[in-house]
Amino acid sequence: MKKLINNVENVLDEALAGICAAHPQHVKKLENVNVLVRTDGPVKGKVALVSGGGSGHEPLDGGYVGKGMLDAAVAGAIFTSPTPDQIYEAIKAADSGNGVLIIILNYTGDIMNFEMAKDMVEMEGIKVDTVIVNDDVAVENSTYTAGRRGIAGTIFINKIAGAAAESRRSLEEVKAVTQKAIDNVRSMGMALSSCIVPASGKPIFEIGEDEMEIGMGVHGEPGIRREKIKSADEIVNELMSKILDDMKLASGDEVAVLVNGLSSTPLIELYIINNRVSQILKEKGVKTHKTFVGEYMTSLEMAGFSISLLKLDAELKELFDAPADSPALKVL
Amino acid sequence: MKKLINNVENVLDEALAGICAAHPQHVKKLENVNVLVRTDGPVKGKVALVSGGGSGHEPLDGGYVGKGMLDAAVAGAIFTSPTPDQIYEAIKAADSGNGVLIIILNYTGDIMNFEMAKDMVEMEGIKVDTVIVNDDVAVENSTYTAGRRGIAGTIFINKIAGAAAESRRSLEEVKAVTQKAIDNVRSMGMALSSCIVPASGKPIFEIGEDEMEIGMGVHGEPGIRREKIKSADEIVNELMSKILDDMKLASGDEVAVLVNGLSSTPLIELYIINNRVSQILKEKGVKTHKTFVGEYMTSLEMAGFSISLLKLDAELKELFDAPADSPALKVL
Repeated sequence: MKKLINNVENVLDEALAGICAAHPQHVKKLENVNVLVRTDGPVKGKVALVSGGGSGHEPLDGGYVGKGMLDAAVAGAIFTSPTPDQIYEAIKAADSGNGVLIIILNYTGDIMNFEMAKDMVEMEGIKVDTVIVNDDVAVENSTYTAGRRGIAGTIFINKIAGAAAESRRSLEEVKAVTQKAIDNVRSMGMALSSCIVPASGKPIFEIGEDEMEIGMGVHGEPGIRREKIKSADEIVNELMSKILDDMKLASGDEVAVLVNGLSSTPLIELYIINNRVSQILKEKGVKTHKTFVGEYMTSLEMAGFSISLLKLDAELKELFDAPADSPALKVL
Repeated sequence: MKKLINNVENVLDEALAGICAAHPQHVKKLENVNVLVRTDGPVKGKVALVSGGGSGHEPLDGGYVGKGMLDAAVAGAIFTSPTPDQIYEAIKAADSGNGVLIIILNYTGDIMNFEMAKDMVEMEGIKVDTVIVNDDVAVENSTYTAGRRGIAGTIFINKIAGAAAESRRSLEEVKAVTQKAIDNVRSMGMALSSCIVPASGKPIFEIGEDEMEIGMGVHGEPGIRREKIKSADEIVNELMSKILDDMKLASGDEVAVLVNGLSSTPLIELYIINNRVSQILKEKGVKTHKTFVGEYMTSLEMAGFSISLLKLDAELKELFDAPADSPALKVL
């Protein structure tokens, strides 16, 4: 196991300390709990946004805490749902009396624990609602999920919800537009290699030196098919075809694009992938409003990528373009 | 060779097309030459900044073209200096009549070709000057370098020069402050794995499953020592000790920090590294003004990282904090 760590027990504590040391203008850590909150929070008069999940997907979610983005991110152990008491602390710290929207990625353990924390804070009179991100079109139901998995499309959801909350919309309004964004976002990924959870020290799965897995989950959950690696264009064609079949985009529609690296895939390859994504959209007459290429939701050291498309209408576009200032996403 | 490409001949063309498709608001490509220039350029009344080098280090340099950053980036073949005629086209396209500063990373081939292009444009009456970035304290002289290599510290140099040029300083002034920044920046890196140049299809070097190389160059040039992998803190201690020996920082001094991933090292590990970097600076009484953690200058799929420190005075700090808007670096 070739990792730049000190010991497997301290990985998360040290990483969170490193995030806070790097971005003190954006985030601070709550004492005794793995929750990152806005340094300038809780922000008065604003619906608070809380997200989170298992760690190992950095910069998700601490990297998306900041102005126009999240108010708090709960960091579970690596690839493990945060516990209800951690989530409880995050909600309490983020709330400024205007209600809290929780953005949950669709994993069964996450939903259970976030819902439990919601019940706990509601008993204290905090107004809370939830949305569930389920953007991955690869498979219905999976190792840790009923329905579709939540993956990198959640970055776009954080952005939309963040802008809506920052503009002082009500909890009901923030939830409604966030749900619209969720209904409009689709993703799909693939992997070339596994990753190693530090505590186990072993790859989650084995894959041949010339193989890839189409539709792989971000924790190594099985995809659609294991096969010999194909060309970048052939792979993108398949992922885009699955995504577009599900979105039913028409000529003239407008989308935001995310080509997300899982970690070990170099940026030069992600740009080759984006080249084909952009060609396909152009061929369909779909306008690309903005594109992000890079590592926005990783899977430890996994090689591979995902594509996410968010269909924009006038309201979503305005929120998408609103300023944001978080460690991992800045919109000027 | 497990790469997400179409074929080895088209890697660079397709990647550049993918960059332009992703960031049309920032960069466009010149016809028939691998040069990315500002979409809104050439910018009137401003010294133009040109940098570049071999590809395979994305987002360097195309990702740093934009407002408050570079005006043009020349992309050589992978790990290969751009040719003088490419650089010539970049300078010609960037120049708006106020002179051009070329930022060269210290590799012998790059210096030769950039100097040759400088001679060519000077014959046409364009005022050009150069600076050479040589921030890597690991080794004196190396496979492709006389003196010290230029590595990720060049991101900070782009930022300082970019802000100086944007504020409409003269060529002499931009060069002077850029040279001051170069004198104030130091870096050092290490690698856990090699990378594979697509055209060769083979790793540049072999390294054991439990080994690391301290002081490795970004093209796989030998470092100081090959040995069994140590803990993250021990590795950071050594790199920081070499950097700080060379910088002679005093308590009360202020620095900008870059913890740069070479590609396959996950962000969670880079944050663990930053945690130790930040502790060391605190112990020395050195104030950290701003920190960047992520992939700012990669080496294809190499695993490993580098640390860069830029010592700031009042002038450099102001330039460092000035707004910038490029695909890979945004300062609000």
